[in-house]
Amino acid sequence: MRTARPGGRTAQTKAAVFEAASALLAEKSPASISMVEVAGRAGVAATSLYRRWGDLPTLLLDVAVERLMEDWPLPDTGCLATDLQVWAGRIAASLGSRDGSLFFRVYVATAPLAAEATPGRSAAVMRRVGQIAALLDRATARGEPAPAVTEVVDHLLAPLYMRALFGMPADESIALDLVARLLDRAAR
Amino acid sequence: MRTARPGGRTAQTKAAVFEAASALLAEKSPASISMVEVAGRAGVAATSLYRRWGDLPTLLLDVAVERLMEDWPLPDTGCLATDLQVWAGRIAASLGSRDGSLFFRVYVATAPLAAEATPGRSAAVMRRVGQIAALLDRATARGEPAPAVTEVVDHLLAPLYMRALFGMPADESIALDLVARLLDRAAR
Repeated sequence: MRTARPGGRTAQTKAAVFEAASALLAEKSPASISMVEVAGRAGVAATSLYRRWGDLPTLLLDVAVERLMEDWPLPDTGCLATDLQVWAGRIAASLGSRDGSLFFRVYVATAPLAAEATPGRSAAVMRRVGQIAALLDRATARGEPAPAVTEVVDHLLAPLYMRALFGMPADESIALDLVARLLDRAAR
Repeated sequence: MRTARPGGRTAQTKAAVFEAASALLAEKSPASISMVEVAGRAGVAATSLYRRWGDLPTLLLDVAVERLMEDWPLPDTGCLATDLQVWAGRIAASLGSRDGSLFFRVYVATAPLAAEATPGRSAAVMRRVGQIAALLDRATARGEPAPAVTEVVDHLLAPLYMRALFGMPADESIALDLVARLLDRAAR
């Protein structure tokens, strides 16, 4: 029986497709998944997947971005060190989880590779850069010494992402060490 | 006419397949390439590709690792700062080139995603880690102050890789800045 609300059905279809794609991604590499496979597991016609997403990379990218970019409130503890510890700890915990690490790598794998697509590729990381800028602005307004945004990207975010990508440890204690090192330098 | 040396023909086939795969990768995302497409462009039967590589991700990973891991002699200038500048400048130049950046992202995209496959995934980065260790050992033997290997990974390699992944600038002048910052700290 068809549901009376098309919006509701669309949302349910999307949830089923995302669920199916996530399950397949947990099993194998993005390059060995097909649109037909996702459709089959979601119980949806492949044609409607093509209509909605166009191709598989676009679908997988949509799944990865939605799972990765889940929003949590920015910490606001009144102290930059604590704010960064909470923020970086949260990212480390997410990258350290099976799902977080998986979706980060799927994001990297499916984001457009062509040089011309660079703005689209950096859009996801720009969200994190915006969060860093907000934390640093607050610290500066309180009169705390603060590093530059690029320093936080290079020396806090980059080591955590790189460690997740290459299967090296990236837990909360490493996040704390990275924050301490960063702020030690900013205070000089 | 068939060539008399099967080894020679095998090498030629491999070169044609790598060439075809590289050309396709420059055009679109790894997830939208098929084995049949690579075979067609290389003028080789798809069955022989399946026989040799098993599946497309394995083939693309092989291409990316070969293109990325091209060997160049480690610098040995008698001074850690100069050694690291040359080494990091070379990596930045490679990541900054269209091909280097492409193959790095293909490597990340096709390396096995499953948690169990972690050792395989980190094998490529381990080569760079080995180079870092060699440079630092030499510096220590000369009595120079030297950072730890993980510091060089986190604060020199990670920012360069992360910038390449997200389409942020990663040129040789940034490599020089990162080296200066790293050694400034090691000297304290």
